[in-house]
Amino acid sequence: MIKIAIMGYGVVGSGLVELIDENREAKKCNEEIVITSILVRNKEKHKNKNHSEVLTTDIEEFFSKESDIVVEVMGEITKSLIYVKRALNLKKHVVTANKDLLAEYGEELFELANENGVALKFEASIGGGIPVIKSLIESLEGNNINSIKAILNGTTNFILTKMDKEKLSYEEALKEAQELGFAEANPEADVMGYDAARKLSLLSTLAFRKKVSWKNINIQGITEVESVDFDYADKINCKVKLLCISNNSDEGVYATVKPVLVENESVLAQINNEVNIVIFNGDSIGEIILIGKGAGKMPTGSAVYADVLDIVNKRFTKITAFKREEAKIIENLQGECSAVLRIENSKEQDIIKKCANEFTFIQVLQTQIEGETGVLVKANSEIEIDRFIDGLLANSYVKSIKKIIKID
Amino acid sequence: MIKIAIMGYGVVGSGLVELIDENREAKKCNEEIVITSILVRNKEKHKNKNHSEVLTTDIEEFFSKESDIVVEVMGEITKSLIYVKRALNLKKHVVTANKDLLAEYGEELFELANENGVALKFEASIGGGIPVIKSLIESLEGNNINSIKAILNGTTNFILTKMDKEKLSYEEALKEAQELGFAEANPEADVMGYDAARKLSLLSTLAFRKKVSWKNINIQGITEVESVDFDYADKINCKVKLLCISNNSDEGVYATVKPVLVENESVLAQINNEVNIVIFNGDSIGEIILIGKGAGKMPTGSAVYADVLDIVNKRFTKITAFKREEAKIIENLQGECSAVLRIENSKEQDIIKKCANEFTFIQVLQTQIEGETGVLVKANSEIEIDRFIDGLLANSYVKSIKKIIKID
Repeated sequence: MIKIAIMGYGVVGSGLVELIDENREAKKCNEEIVITSILVRNKEKHKNKNHSEVLTTDIEEFFSKESDIVVEVMGEITKSLIYVKRALNLKKHVVTANKDLLAEYGEELFELANENGVALKFEASIGGGIPVIKSLIESLEGNNINSIKAILNGTTNFILTKMDKEKLSYEEALKEAQELGFAEANPEADVMGYDAARKLSLLSTLAFRKKVSWKNINIQGITEVESVDFDYADKINCKVKLLCISNNSDEGVYATVKPVLVENESVLAQINNEVNIVIFNGDSIGEIILIGKGAGKMPTGSAVYADVLDIVNKRFTKITAFKREEAKIIENLQGECSAVLRIENSKEQDIIKKCANEFTFIQVLQTQIEGETGVLVKANSEIEIDRFIDGLLANSYVKSIKKIIKID
Repeated sequence: MIKIAIMGYGVVGSGLVELIDENREAKKCNEEIVITSILVRNKEKHKNKNHSEVLTTDIEEFFSKESDIVVEVMGEITKSLIYVKRALNLKKHVVTANKDLLAEYGEELFELANENGVALKFEASIGGGIPVIKSLIESLEGNNINSIKAILNGTTNFILTKMDKEKLSYEEALKEAQELGFAEANPEADVMGYDAARKLSLLSTLAFRKKVSWKNINIQGITEVESVDFDYADKINCKVKLLCISNNSDEGVYATVKPVLVENESVLAQINNEVNIVIFNGDSIGEIILIGKGAGKMPTGSAVYADVLDIVNKRFTKITAFKREEAKIIENLQGECSAVLRIENSKEQDIIKKCANEFTFIQVLQTQIEGETGVLVKANSEIEIDRFIDGLLANSYVKSIKKIIKID
């Protein structure tokens, strides 16, 4: 018999409890899993749920109950940190869905888990139900991972999908996302790209075996994405997606979260609404793509439950990547780079001539926007494009330039 | 130190040995993995490879060397069965990439592994480097899997991709696949769908926790696929793919391997050449999609190496699904069904009228083929379509009907 104590009885916690109960009844787990305590803020709110007899609002009472595994699905940071550390120090295995906690305190927490000889599992923290972490640290263990491309934030992907398919403005799409519960009242962490960056930081650290702090990631959210960007994308058979990208090389790590163009005939372009995708490129395995629902009660509950079963079945993996040295960050994408440039100017012919002289390939994109020239350009590197932009901006007749890179 | 003995030093065996050596040098594995013996048919052929000092052609010598893990990558059946059983009886963990062996003798072999308290791992047997098995039996363990959709045979997917993108005939595409080493001289197991069916049998057995023998699977290969099928597909924004499909319900299991139509704006449609894809639908997790290279030295080697590391790290999962009772097989796809019908006939207007009277939706598809009517139809079930076909065939003016179902 395995005893489990759960901190939090919200969406994910409820999903987990349902799965534990269902699977116990179906006798599908070789060990009986018993819930010994559930920590909540308000007992009254949960009194009609299953296991109401083990609810507690008191952390001392919570820890006084026997448990082999502590699950943290409160989604806070300060309290979660204190409680998770306490659990690890008590030599309890911990399962968490808290990417913010790990992005901030991963190094300390994994170290503590290793010192105490217990597991700290976190599959649900990235990509909901998708087995991202397990695939990366177990199945791809023999590989050197060269790059990651991913859509890891369901809220922004939902908004971009709405803007594309229903021709909504950013504001309209955000409002709809909020009404449907896909976006928070304060959507900052999502729309500014912070949530995606924290997830990319965890994945990159594990994949590249060096620390990639989320604060070092070059982050650009979706608040500047306009309907007209989708029109441009359409002209070159692309879609706009908020992509997490990180590449590892001897020179360092390039890591960014930003809106980019992806080709219609790519898997990335088919990822709509709340669906997440992760693409790992390993030196042996080539490209491995994982897709699934990135959030929600049962998908995320299923990932937490899988972590619990790993512990029940003693399938442990020690995480050491977070105590490695900080990766050197490279600012620009290496290698050939294509981008759409939206240039606000008063001398279109001159701009086009300049582009044609500078780049190996250009395609002028028709637009209805007065005083704007749209051009798809291809260069030997992103730096080349950025230098060209800087040069143009020095001209008095160029007012502003917006760049969206295209990813192969 | 973990001692490993390998049966077979071909493509996959060489990939595995490279990964073991590379990772040992990089000290990335917490235990040193030592290769104690490699069984080959001809020592001369491999004498310039690494570890030539442990080559043997003698199975007695092979088993006389110490080993904790035996890897079987010979790709035979009769010999592999005898040797794998011997290894399991000697209480050695076994890793195999041999789907044919498991599709025929899985029940016996997993039983033997369980009796001897050792692991029998087989990630590389399905989908090359894609972590299909691990995801299914560990990450999705808490789920009831409702359905599987997959492209599991690289050879046929390569041929269909060539037929689509380069407008080749089946014969031309097959010839090119053979020249490039993507198809065997005798391509039967691939083009007739047997290889895909064996893999679907293993996946369905594990997923549905009841035995789905490959001989019970309704199999149709790609030998009847014609260029004109791609023209029809194109008219309804679809591609033709050899899909493995299995659905589980209280009534039984529907399992088939056959060419079907998939929408251009789907992930399935983006899977080209030797790439494989598996889509699991779980009751909690929803749709999980896994994509990667389905074959090749390093992708497959990487999957075998991951299995070895699981054993080194004692991450075991006991497989019991194969001794369950045989699933009841349902012949037809349940629920709404769309299909393109190619009807060879002498009375087009009458055929169209009959279709319009019968089905909830029809779309007549223009074709250049003399005496053929192409129609996309939508019915409440596949049986309804089949009954209609039988009825038409009873008419003297209908010579033949080809049906290709469309999958959502």
